[in-house]
Amino acid sequence: MEQVNVRWYVEDVSVHSSTVAVAGLPGVGHVGKLVVDHLIRALSAVKVAEITSTLFPPQMYLSEDSVLRLPRNEIFFVPETEDHQALLFLAGDCQSTTPDGHYTLAEAYLRVFDLLNVRKVYTLGGYGVGRMVEHPRVLSALSSSKLKEEVIAAGAVINSEEPVGGIIGAAGLLITLGRLHGMDGVALLGETSGYLVDPVSSTAVLDVLEKLVHLHADRTELTDLAEQMMTDVAAATASAAGSRPPDDLSYIG
Amino acid sequence: MEQVNVRWYVEDVSVHSSTVAVAGLPGVGHVGKLVVDHLIRALSAVKVAEITSTLFPPQMYLSEDSVLRLPRNEIFFVPETEDHQALLFLAGDCQSTTPDGHYTLAEAYLRVFDLLNVRKVYTLGGYGVGRMVEHPRVLSALSSSKLKEEVIAAGAVINSEEPVGGIIGAAGLLITLGRLHGMDGVALLGETSGYLVDPVSSTAVLDVLEKLVHLHADRTELTDLAEQMMTDVAAATASAAGSRPPDDLSYIG
Amino acid sequence: MEQVNVRWYVEDVSVHSSTVAVAGLPGVGHVGKLVVDHLIRALSAVKVAEITSTLFPPQMYLSEDSVLRLPRNEIFFVPETEDHQALLFLAGDCQSTTPDGHYTLAEAYLRVFDLLNVRKVYTLGGYGVGRMVEHPRVLSALSSSKLKEEVIAAGAVINSEEPVGGIIGAAGLLITLGRLHGMDGVALLGETSGYLVDPVSSTAVLDVLEKLVHLHADRTELTDLAEQMMTDVAAATASAAGSRPPDDLSYIG
Amino acid sequence: MEQVNVRWYVEDVSVHSSTVAVAGLPGVGHVGKLVVDHLIRALSAVKVAEITSTLFPPQMYLSEDSVLRLPRNEIFFVPETEDHQALLFLAGDCQSTTPDGHYTLAEAYLRVFDLLNVRKVYTLGGYGVGRMVEHPRVLSALSSSKLKEEVIAAGAVINSEEPVGGIIGAAGLLITLGRLHGMDGVALLGETSGYLVDPVSSTAVLDVLEKLVHLHADRTELTDLAEQMMTDVAAATASAAGSRPPDDLSYIG
Repeated sequence: MEQVNVRWYVEDVSVHSSTVAVAGLPGVGHVGKLVVDHLIRALSAVKVAEITSTLFPPQMYLSEDSVLRLPRNEIFFVPETEDHQALLFLAGDCQSTTPDGHYTLAEAYLRVFDLLNVRKVYTLGGYGVGRMVEHPRVLSALSSSKLKEEVIAAGAVINSEEPVGGIIGAAGLLITLGRLHGMDGVALLGETSGYLVDPVSSTAVLDVLEKLVHLHADRTELTDLAEQMMTDVAAATASAAGSRPPDDLSYIG
Repeated sequence: MEQVNVRWYVEDVSVHSSTVAVAGLPGVGHVGKLVVDHLIRALSAVKVAEITSTLFPPQMYLSEDSVLRLPRNEIFFVPETEDHQALLFLAGDCQSTTPDGHYTLAEAYLRVFDLLNVRKVYTLGGYGVGRMVEHPRVLSALSSSKLKEEVIAAGAVINSEEPVGGIIGAAGLLITLGRLHGMDGVALLGETSGYLVDPVSSTAVLDVLEKLVHLHADRTELTDLAEQMMTDVAAATASAAGSRPPDDLSYIG
Repeated sequence: MEQVNVRWYVEDVSVHSSTVAVAGLPGVGHVGKLVVDHLIRALSAVKVAEITSTLFPPQMYLSEDSVLRLPRNEIFFVPETEDHQALLFLAGDCQSTTPDGHYTLAEAYLRVFDLLNVRKVYTLGGYGVGRMVEHPRVLSALSSSKLKEEVIAAGAVINSEEPVGGIIGAAGLLITLGRLHGMDGVALLGETSGYLVDPVSSTAVLDVLEKLVHLHADRTELTDLAEQMMTDVAAATASAAGSRPPDDLSYIG
Repeated sequence: MEQVNVRWYVEDVSVHSSTVAVAGLPGVGHVGKLVVDHLIRALSAVKVAEITSTLFPPQMYLSEDSVLRLPRNEIFFVPETEDHQALLFLAGDCQSTTPDGHYTLAEAYLRVFDLLNVRKVYTLGGYGVGRMVEHPRVLSALSSSKLKEEVIAAGAVINSEEPVGGIIGAAGLLITLGRLHGMDGVALLGETSGYLVDPVSSTAVLDVLEKLVHLHADRTELTDLAEQMMTDVAAATASAAGSRPPDDLSYIG
């Protein structure tokens, strides 16, 4: 097994004049992952490639029929419409197990993006603030200051002091290394506690993303998750001891 | 010393038309290791190869006469009988010291399996549940859904929600990477507390394995170990303070 | 991306007959970093090269206009004057994420120094003593005992028992590996608590460095920082509970 | 800098018909290091080679005149006498920073041993037992059972149950990998608390070693250290609170 392996699921990858990629890998609050997984379903995106790697954890996953599979990240495709350009989504199970593995994997994703004619990359993630946030802001960082205006117009906050400490992992690397591949890049990070999977923060990030890429996907599923979370948190707060969070709020380390 | 070294103990490896491999390396509760070490003795399996690696811990072992040896994993062989196919066992001291080392070592084991004409791999292990289990279930995960029926018939549980978090290490990797080598694969994980070496869970796994490969080996030794453990646990539970577990129940970290 | 990448910012690097390099990377109390960052501004040093590396943390930084950039270390140049030789400064964001990465990166910096005709290297840092130090000493270690006299004359302490445990990271490696490149080397470590960014210790190191390289740069900025720190520490000590340090004293892990 | 570097200090290494190597690198209680450092001084051994490596910690050491040097391990030589064969000593600052680095460094030491015609290797170390030991036993493990008799005759204990968990690091690897180089090997581990640098345990190991290699070196220095330690421990035990150990007993992690 090579360090990074790309398996294509389409025989002939139709290269578009300009494709937009949206990346949402696991991270703080799974904010980015929730958005991208939601859009893949809502837009019936088609899988075009799968990335496996010895830089991923040696942890095998069970599919629905108990068949084991390698940890993987996947690339999905949605053709252009009257509203929006052709879209790619980068989604999946994991990030790198080592610091320098993050650089290697980001380059691997960008090589696939190059083949699919990506000209702009959006990376979605969470920004942990250590407390519950009812109305999360969406912080943004860019590959170029020329993108500032459109990002602010879409509702994101641009402030060079935030996120404090910059951006760790694929959400940051795809922007900085993507620029070296000639791609524009916008990172969108929803404020989140950092303790829970956070569909409320995901909804805020989706609001900004949809304005930027002219999407209007059905979002019932994500809204339901967010409303459920707000109810659960309210219940947990109301209950005296504040002991354990409700079962359906998974803890994310 | 190469990263992975295979030393053969037979001059001419007789390749069988179809061999079955059973892997039981150290892991949670040593469930898989106990089963495979037991079968190697009960069936008088013959050592055919030894694997040493710089990916193993730099911890040298003492043999019975205080001679030091490298940490190693070993491959044993049992010829076919009227009841069962030719069998290989993968047993030994350790797994990898690094995340990506797990991938490298799994590939190394599979290359040996290829040479010995392995067509099906069983991996045995434990699944830690954090509490004592009197009647452990055996959870299974597969290389292909076509194996479902025979595995359920043999007494294992197929449930895509378990083991939660998938399977970490060789027990999972030999199934997923083995499929790429054209091998069928079945992982069998016995429920276990995760705190003790657990021959009771091993007995449950052995029950399922024997049905699947048509083995009927003497199991006095393993049963004795299991009965001893049940007695010890009962005694420990009866004794008031619950201080230290009895000496012969080794703690596995 | 290569493991270490050097990007030059000048077309023709004018090689001087003898250049002096001063390194101040992040470390204990950011003592060295504060000095070098201060001198780069005070002397209007010009950036000549930038080093990025997969050995740096996968943490992207925000520039002033929220544009993301890779973590980087930079090399700045100041031409010779009547007082001092041509000077190079090595400054930046980070050190290596792995033990052996420190060796690789130190060699990379030294290759750049070779091209720029460096004959002498000063490395600046802090030496953590676990308590507040009002009048920090500056400890020194050398590439050769022939440098002892001038370093003592400049006010540093030479004592082979200090720093206890030697010098970890670039501040030590640039001296020992630099000698193999034919460069003299002087490490200057200001005593510091180890808990706070420490401009007071930086001022003490700057005193010694300026005597050694015949510099007389305006130091208003650094002095202001140091005075502010003394005031803050006094206030924090005066306030009863000794709870949290004032906000503008950043904690350094 | 290569991963492992050997620098020779003699122009013509006179190869002896049979040389014995004694290794004492830093480890539990510094038991082996104290013995070998003592013998190098007592026998006026001559340095013949120095090993530096990027697998050593990036921690630079101060020599007596505050000159910085790389961490290193060194090889010293003592010519044969009427009593004993030619002797080599492997001594120094450190072991590897990574698990697989231990294998790489052991091979590097053995390549030097090969060039110097080593036929037998003694490795010295400590075996931590978690309590103060007044009369430490010396446990031994071997490259071959044929060595058993002479080792027992010299006063060491041969028991395949001890040391529990085998031998970690160079003291074990030089025996197992040395056998592949055709060298006999004997590991000698003095019982020690594991909390303190332990010259008492070192004296016990030296007793056994001297019988095995027919050495009778002056040991005033080591005996003085051991007596001082016994006095200090007695004093510490007598003093009520059992707070901090006396200053001259360095803690070894």
